[in-house]
Amino acid sequence: MVDNTEELIAKTPEAIREALGIEVKVRHDITEIDLKQRRLRVQEQDNPRTWWEPFDQLMVATGALPIRPPVDGINATGIFGVNTLESGIQLNRFIRENEPRKAVVIGGGYIGLEMAENLIKRGLEVSLVERAPEVMGTLDPNMGALVSKALIDVGVDLYRDESLEGFEITRDRVSEVITDQRRLPADLVILGMGVKPNTTLAQAAGIPLGDTGAIAVDDTMQTRVDQVWAGGDCAESFHLISQKPAAIALGTVANKHGRVAGTNMGGGNAIFPGLVGTAVSKICAVEVARTGLQEKEAEQMGAEYVSEVIVSTTRAGYYPHSGPITVKMLAEKGSGRLLGAQIVGREGAAKRIDILATALHAGFTVAEIADLDLSYAPPYSPLWDPVAIAARMTLKKV
Amino acid sequence: MVDNTEELIAKTPEAIREALGIEVKVRHDITEIDLKQRRLRVQEQDNPRTWWEPFDQLMVATGALPIRPPVDGINATGIFGVNTLESGIQLNRFIRENEPRKAVVIGGGYIGLEMAENLIKRGLEVSLVERAPEVMGTLDPNMGALVSKALIDVGVDLYRDESLEGFEITRDRVSEVITDQRRLPADLVILGMGVKPNTTLAQAAGIPLGDTGAIAVDDTMQTRVDQVWAGGDCAESFHLISQKPAAIALGTVANKHGRVAGTNMGGGNAIFPGLVGTAVSKICAVEVARTGLQEKEAEQMGAEYVSEVIVSTTRAGYYPHSGPITVKMLAEKGSGRLLGAQIVGREGAAKRIDILATALHAGFTVAEIADLDLSYAPPYSPLWDPVAIAARMTLKKV
Repeated sequence: MVDNTEELIAKTPEAIREALGIEVKVRHDITEIDLKQRRLRVQEQDNPRTWWEPFDQLMVATGALPIRPPVDGINATGIFGVNTLESGIQLNRFIRENEPRKAVVIGGGYIGLEMAENLIKRGLEVSLVERAPEVMGTLDPNMGALVSKALIDVGVDLYRDESLEGFEITRDRVSEVITDQRRLPADLVILGMGVKPNTTLAQAAGIPLGDTGAIAVDDTMQTRVDQVWAGGDCAESFHLISQKPAAIALGTVANKHGRVAGTNMGGGNAIFPGLVGTAVSKICAVEVARTGLQEKEAEQMGAEYVSEVIVSTTRAGYYPHSGPITVKMLAEKGSGRLLGAQIVGREGAAKRIDILATALHAGFTVAEIADLDLSYAPPYSPLWDPVAIAARMTLKKV
Repeated sequence: MVDNTEELIAKTPEAIREALGIEVKVRHDITEIDLKQRRLRVQEQDNPRTWWEPFDQLMVATGALPIRPPVDGINATGIFGVNTLESGIQLNRFIRENEPRKAVVIGGGYIGLEMAENLIKRGLEVSLVERAPEVMGTLDPNMGALVSKALIDVGVDLYRDESLEGFEITRDRVSEVITDQRRLPADLVILGMGVKPNTTLAQAAGIPLGDTGAIAVDDTMQTRVDQVWAGGDCAESFHLISQKPAAIALGTVANKHGRVAGTNMGGGNAIFPGLVGTAVSKICAVEVARTGLQEKEAEQMGAEYVSEVIVSTTRAGYYPHSGPITVKMLAEKGSGRLLGAQIVGREGAAKRIDILATALHAGFTVAEIADLDLSYAPPYSPLWDPVAIAARMTLKKV
C-alpha cells in the first residue's frame, strides 16, 4: 500500500530544525536520568563516548515496548515484535530474504490481527494463537467473536483458548511454536501480545509510576517530579468514564499528551481533557470500533449495567454495498447513562463510534442518544441510524 | 440501482393490517376536516360517493408539496415535480416513452441536484438553473461552491444567479425554459425548487399554522386543537439551536414526529426532543452534510459568530482512496459554543456531521470538540480528525 517507508515518516530531524528551530538528535540513547543534578547521560549509538547533558525541563516520551514473554528461544531469528517503523522494515527484509511459508501470530490484538491479515495477503499460511476465548480483547467476547469469524473467513487458522508455552529452535532460528495444546510449524513468528509502557529509565531515576505501570502524571502531564513531564505510551491518562488513570497506547492519546505537555513546558496553560477509550481498526473487510467501558471494565468499576446488541445495516437496506453492522451498548442500570459501545461491521460502520464517544463526553443517557438528530440519506444509513436503534433497544432494559 | 419500485415501499396496507391490526385505506381523499363535529369528509378516488367519517383523535400527516411557481405553462407535459414514489414512476415512464435529450432542472436543492446527477447518468444533456449564487442553499455559499464545482465536473451546464421566468410550450408540451438571461431548449423539466408544507386541508379547517407556514404543534405533536395532532413535512419542529420552530422536510424528522404523536395518541407519554438541523446528501462523488445554523440563520438569530473553513483528508494522507474533506464551523463569539457545521468531501466525509450534531445537542464549545477522544486508524481518518482540526482552528478566532 505504501511503496516507500520514508512516506511514513511524519517529520525528519532536518524538517523540525528548519520549521521550529529545535535540535533533534537521533541515534542517541539516554542511559540515565539524574534528577538531583538535573542532567541526562547521553550515548551516541555509533560511538563509545558518553556525556552528561543538563536540563531545566525534561519530557519523558519513551513509548511502549512489545510484550515479550519470558520463554526460551524468544530472541531467536524469525521472531518479531512489530511496534516501530524500524521493526517493520526488519520484518519486511526478513520476509523478502527468507521467503517464509508458515507464519504464527501470537496474540489477537490490533497488531496481531493486522499482521495476520497482511501475511495472508502476502501468500503465507497463517496461524493465530489467542489465549482468550475470542480475539480482540478490547471488545466483549460476543463482539470479538465476529472478528474471529472474519479472520477465519480470510483463511487464518485460529486457535482460541490456547497459550504460548515455548518455541522449537533449530540452528538459532524458530521452527515451531509450542502451545499448551499443540505444536505449530513456523518459519516466522509475530508477537502480538500487546505492549507495556517503556518506563525502565524513568523508574531507575525514581520518577513514580501509577497503578497501571505507566508514569503517573497530573492533568498538565507533569510527573510527580517538578518540571519533569511525560506523555505518549509511557504515561497514564485520565479515563473520564472509569474516573481512574488508564494506560492507553494510541496515537491520538500520545498526540494530545504532547500538545498539552509542550504547551505547559513552554510557559502556556493546557490541560489534558481526559479520554473515553475510543479505538478503531480494520481487520480484513471488517471494521471494528469501541469506546468507553467494555463489560469487564464496567464490572471492575462496580457499575450496575445493562447491555444490548442490535444488528442493522450500514446504508439503507436497498442501497448498493449496504452491509451488516452490529452495535453493542452498555448503559448504567437505572440512570441509563451510556457507559460504553462496540461496533463491528462492514464499510462505513466504524466511524460511527465517534457519535458515541461524543455522547460519553457529554454524559448522555441512551434515551438522549436515541433522540439525537443524526443524519440520514440512503448512501449513508438506514433512516434510524444503527447507533440510535441500539440506544433505543438498550433503553428498554434500563 | 433499484430494479423494482415495489422494493421502495416500506409497508403495504396489507402488511400493516396484518402486523398491527390497523385498517389502512389507500386511494381515499379527505376533502374536509369538520372540527366541530369531529368528522372527516372522505371520497374514494374512483368513486363519486363521499361520506363523513367520525374521529376521536386525528393525526394530520399531509406532507409537503413541491413548489410550483405561478408561471404560464407550469402544468404542461414534460414538467415534473418529484416528491412521491408515484411522481418518480411517472417521470420514469415519461423518459422511457419520450426519450428526451435535453433536460432542465430548476433549482439546486437536494432534489434538483440528485435529479441532475441521475439524468446525466441516463445520458441526457442537463442544464440546472439556480437563483442563488451557488447551489445547495442549505450550505453557506463558500461551501455550496464546492458542490457547484462537482456538478460542473460531471457535465451539468450550471446557470447560477439566474431565475425562471417562464416556459415555451409547443403543442401542450414544454420546449424551452425561459430565464431572466436566456432560453434553454428542454424536452424535460424538473422542478427542484423545494417543497412547502401541504396545509390546505388543515388551514381550511381552522387548525392554526406557525410562522414557518407549517402546522403549529407543541412538543407532544398536538396542534392548537385538542386531540388533533400533526407530524411530518406539514408540521413544525422545535429547533434547539435557533430556539424557534422550524419547518424541516426530512424523513428523520417525520419519523420522530410519528413516533411521538402515535405514542401520545395511544395514551403514552412522548416528547419530541427538538432537532439541530442535520442533513446529508450525496451529489455525484461528493458527500455533503450540514447541521445547526448556517451563516444567514445565525445572523437572523442575531448571534455574534466566528467561522472557519479547513481542508483535510478523509483518511490518513498516505492511505489508498484518501480524499479531500472541507469542514466549516460556526461558533458563538466569546463563548465558543458551536452553532453549526458544514462538510463537503469525498467518501467517508459526510457521516462525520453526526459528531457535530451530537456536540450541538450537548451544547459543546469548539474547545470541547477539539479535545474529544475521537477514533483514529489510517483507513478512517488522519490522526486528528478533520472535525477536531476545524474546531481547533475555529477556536483561534473565538
